[in-house]
Amino acid sequence: MQLGLIGLGRMGFNMRERLRAAGHEVIGYDHHPDVTDVSSLSELVDKLAAPRVVWIMVPVQYTEPTIDELSGLLSPGDIVIDGGNSRFSNDRPRAERLATKGLGYLDVGVSGGVWGRTNGYALMVGGEKKHVEHCMPIFEGLKPEGEFGFAHAGGVGAGHYAKMVHNGIEYGMMHAYAEGYELLEASEYVENIPEVFKSWRAGSVVQSWLLDLMDRALDEDPNLDGLRGYADDTGEGRWTVEEAIRLAVPMNVIAASLFARFASRQDDSPAMKAVAALRNQFGGHAVKKG
Amino acid sequence: MQLGLIGLGRMGFNMRERLRAAGHEVIGYDHHPDVTDVSSLSELVDKLAAPRVVWIMVPVQYTEPTIDELSGLLSPGDIVIDGGNSRFSNDRPRAERLATKGLGYLDVGVSGGVWGRTNGYALMVGGEKKHVEHCMPIFEGLKPEGEFGFAHAGGVGAGHYAKMVHNGIEYGMMHAYAEGYELLEASEYVENIPEVFKSWRAGSVVQSWLLDLMDRALDEDPNLDGLRGYADDTGEGRWTVEEAIRLAVPMNVIAASLFARFASRQDDSPAMKAVAALRNQFGGHAVKKG
Amino acid sequence: MQLGLIGLGRMGFNMRERLRAAGHEVIGYDHHPDVTDVSSLSELVDKLAAPRVVWIMVPVQYTEPTIDELSGLLSPGDIVIDGGNSRFSNDRPRAERLATKGLGYLDVGVSGGVWGRTNGYALMVGGEKKHVEHCMPIFEGLKPEGEFGFAHAGGVGAGHYAKMVHNGIEYGMMHAYAEGYELLEASEYVENIPEVFKSWRAGSVVQSWLLDLMDRALDEDPNLDGLRGYADDTGEGRWTVEEAIRLAVPMNVIAASLFARFASRQDDSPAMKAVAALRNQFGGHAVKKG
Amino acid sequence: MQLGLIGLGRMGFNMRERLRAAGHEVIGYDHHPDVTDVSSLSELVDKLAAPRVVWIMVPVQYTEPTIDELSGLLSPGDIVIDGGNSRFSNDRPRAERLATKGLGYLDVGVSGGVWGRTNGYALMVGGEKKHVEHCMPIFEGLKPEGEFGFAHAGGVGAGHYAKMVHNGIEYGMMHAYAEGYELLEASEYVENIPEVFKSWRAGSVVQSWLLDLMDRALDEDPNLDGLRGYADDTGEGRWTVEEAIRLAVPMNVIAASLFARFASRQDDSPAMKAVAALRNQFGGHAVKKG
Repeated sequence: MQLGLIGLGRMGFNMRERLRAAGHEVIGYDHHPDVTDVSSLSELVDKLAAPRVVWIMVPVQYTEPTIDELSGLLSPGDIVIDGGNSRFSNDRPRAERLATKGLGYLDVGVSGGVWGRTNGYALMVGGEKKHVEHCMPIFEGLKPEGEFGFAHAGGVGAGHYAKMVHNGIEYGMMHAYAEGYELLEASEYVENIPEVFKSWRAGSVVQSWLLDLMDRALDEDPNLDGLRGYADDTGEGRWTVEEAIRLAVPMNVIAASLFARFASRQDDSPAMKAVAALRNQFGGHAVKKG
Repeated sequence: MQLGLIGLGRMGFNMRERLRAAGHEVIGYDHHPDVTDVSSLSELVDKLAAPRVVWIMVPVQYTEPTIDELSGLLSPGDIVIDGGNSRFSNDRPRAERLATKGLGYLDVGVSGGVWGRTNGYALMVGGEKKHVEHCMPIFEGLKPEGEFGFAHAGGVGAGHYAKMVHNGIEYGMMHAYAEGYELLEASEYVENIPEVFKSWRAGSVVQSWLLDLMDRALDEDPNLDGLRGYADDTGEGRWTVEEAIRLAVPMNVIAASLFARFASRQDDSPAMKAVAALRNQFGGHAVKKG
Repeated sequence: MQLGLIGLGRMGFNMRERLRAAGHEVIGYDHHPDVTDVSSLSELVDKLAAPRVVWIMVPVQYTEPTIDELSGLLSPGDIVIDGGNSRFSNDRPRAERLATKGLGYLDVGVSGGVWGRTNGYALMVGGEKKHVEHCMPIFEGLKPEGEFGFAHAGGVGAGHYAKMVHNGIEYGMMHAYAEGYELLEASEYVENIPEVFKSWRAGSVVQSWLLDLMDRALDEDPNLDGLRGYADDTGEGRWTVEEAIRLAVPMNVIAASLFARFASRQDDSPAMKAVAALRNQFGGHAVKKG
Repeated sequence: MQLGLIGLGRMGFNMRERLRAAGHEVIGYDHHPDVTDVSSLSELVDKLAAPRVVWIMVPVQYTEPTIDELSGLLSPGDIVIDGGNSRFSNDRPRAERLATKGLGYLDVGVSGGVWGRTNGYALMVGGEKKHVEHCMPIFEGLKPEGEFGFAHAGGVGAGHYAKMVHNGIEYGMMHAYAEGYELLEASEYVENIPEVFKSWRAGSVVQSWLLDLMDRALDEDPNLDGLRGYADDTGEGRWTVEEAIRLAVPMNVIAASLFARFASRQDDSPAMKAVAALRNQFGGHAVKKG
């Protein structure tokens, strides 16, 4: 099947490779001349036979302008797919805007990171059934072998929503391992931490792909000496907790994981300055000067 | 290799089966006449050739009395293994006590649940190298195929310590999935929650064995209608947080998971009664009568 | 000074009383005929001499329609005050809309609950300095005696923002007392819990007005037997955590207090159902049927 | 009334002053010659008329040796008071040991910090009624004026238990203010943070003594620039959470406050290193080098 793919960064580049390996014709566009197949969006559109399917895989801040430009070039019956990290709440207005031009829209949450090219990508899709069915060959090419790794999660927005929850869970899981790792590091009992992680990789209740990666990371750097305890967040964690607030869902674990990332980016904690100030005020407790 | 195995409950029974299937001679003792191979501890000891290895797999409250009785029957050079859920802090005193009688001691954390018989058990072992080496054939018989699923974690206590941390991580992981599930349940976006869990089972960052089990549970009962939101805890989660407190390790995620279990067992929350009382006092906010 | 006051519920009624006691002329409007001074908004506006000051103290869902109607009746130079629980983010658009008609706008966070009539209300004001100065006699009449209880927090929105943070802190403080109360309840050590709360009311680091109210509540119902552990939330707690997310501020304490309220309103926890399902799947742990 | 007072540090010194001002005869002992009234414990005991009351107010690590030495010098009928930060669980064994020598024992939680000399100290007392009654004049001299600030909380241990819970609550309250402060700092809405804190000091729901101190601290250093966000913990917070674990009490707020203190003392977070390692492994996300 023919696919236009806009955005050939870390994710898009690998997706093109996987799709081509599966026999699909992918025409990619990127502003980096080294990787692009065409020199402009209009050339991309020209090269695709209608009804076209164009998958957008660009950094989230470029998604709206890309869709705006693209929608001026496409024809009724074409389908736009956003596979990037858009907030789910943007999908329905976007789909309605595109529908006025006769264009279909699917939102697709994509998980898999740099491993997806080899292992396949988990895909969570939101949109109308007819659009999903039309694009199914592409999804088949991207998803892993076997019965898992794909869901038509619901109407427009459901794909990004499912991916958002996926990432919220990811935050919590990563932090659970991280807290366990820190406790092992702090304790005098366990002498061989990487061995312990290896012991969990088969037979245990906590076996997972993240655990495999943790073991890999410890093999490369057994005390993680080469790293700083610093982590960005890409939005989905924040949106997950915002949704928990909107829907009155208690979410202590994922929220704590998110807050830990915020804290990891602070040079000093204003809140703890306030605690230090209070302790000094009432108890004359020693403070550290700033 | 010959092994005495005390305790043939859910775990011990399956372990005997797996070891026998691997060609080991297991003599099991249990107070249930249907499953036991011998009628008493002394008969068990008599049937084993010295140097004996005796694995104890009993509910934690019976571990000390069992070891006491057993240590009166064994001979210098024999090895006692505790594979139950003992608190790691009990291991060193126990090992010292046994050492005065010339008995060796290994503490083994065992993970795998009801699936271990088929898949193998993850084993985390604490104790002296010579004792570990002596018992290695047994460990080989219990652990999963392949390079993972076994660690000699350190000296006496390290096995139970590693298992404790394992279970703390397990609490956090389970709760991360659980919060994600609840958000999907609460939201109007995703129509097909079991499908979404299936999509994560391959290719995604959150794939894990627990996820596979969650999918299985949703297949059996898509809205979990047949369950109450109630969960016991078996001690390791509490000990993990206690250790975090002792060692000044921040542990918001695992602690929140533990506290959620506590809350799940309360008919009503005394803390929230206090909050309701306060809101009524200052704001005249309506309260619900008890 | 003359004031129009719209909304004579629990808060507005008491505020009118306090202002009248302070010598101000308050003309109140409410849809309840028993408490209103005028029969319509237009009559209210007619009775006030320009430049008018009209304070709106209505449930948050009625604020926008009330302002819409009112702004059609007022004259350039008049000032509208919103003293209700509006989200701070609504204030700037509202002020800009009113400014096009020559109307001033102040947002005022009001704390004090049912006790404000006697003790005075803490007031946090956002808006232009000239508007604040014009309304200062009213603020003086509402605030407590002495140097505290009033702030011009900043431009439009700052008053509601400060009140939002105030309520977030309130959530955290209440929950700190609540957790302490629950621990005392659960423990076998302290025999006389109300006495302990009394001991903290003077000399201690945790003395506060909320503590006084807690003591009062325990005097009325020493075990809080007459209450259910159920608490609503009025929005400010949610907005506080949303702001923490927007601004990357770690906020574990206030978020946990908010999540506890959410949990207090659930008959059963979907998340804990998921945990129960998982434990049953891997360990054969007993579950409670729904 | 006559009192022997051992330990004349920040707390003990001020307590001696307050008691003397109230007309009591206090004989103080400290190893610092500048402040002590006697040169040895035995001289202290000699100068007191039987039945003696001796109050110990030493750093917690010296409490047991002090009691050991003291109990060899006292006579049956004398009473020992521990007013320090002992763990409640030490009180009953200690009382039983002293009882074998005919000595009474009271454990007293003391709150008030450096302000207690002027304002009085909140006292939470555990022990037998007859001992409490005997020492009541001393308690009256230390506690604040008025009906509050003293409780006979229960039997031996109840005083330290109540003080422990008090400090747990204190952690939570301080952190609630601290999180609110940090949000105000981070936000663009509120221009005058110290003014906002002042507005809360009267009329508001969050008024408290800690708030007064926070305002005082902001007066001295409006942005807390002179401080580092670093806070020790003196044990009671840890014990509070340990008790929550023992008694299955959900305690997210106080635990989060405690964990924030732990984090404040780390140069880098091992847990966040693990998170960074995982993100790098699966997503190729940039990491900061250690």
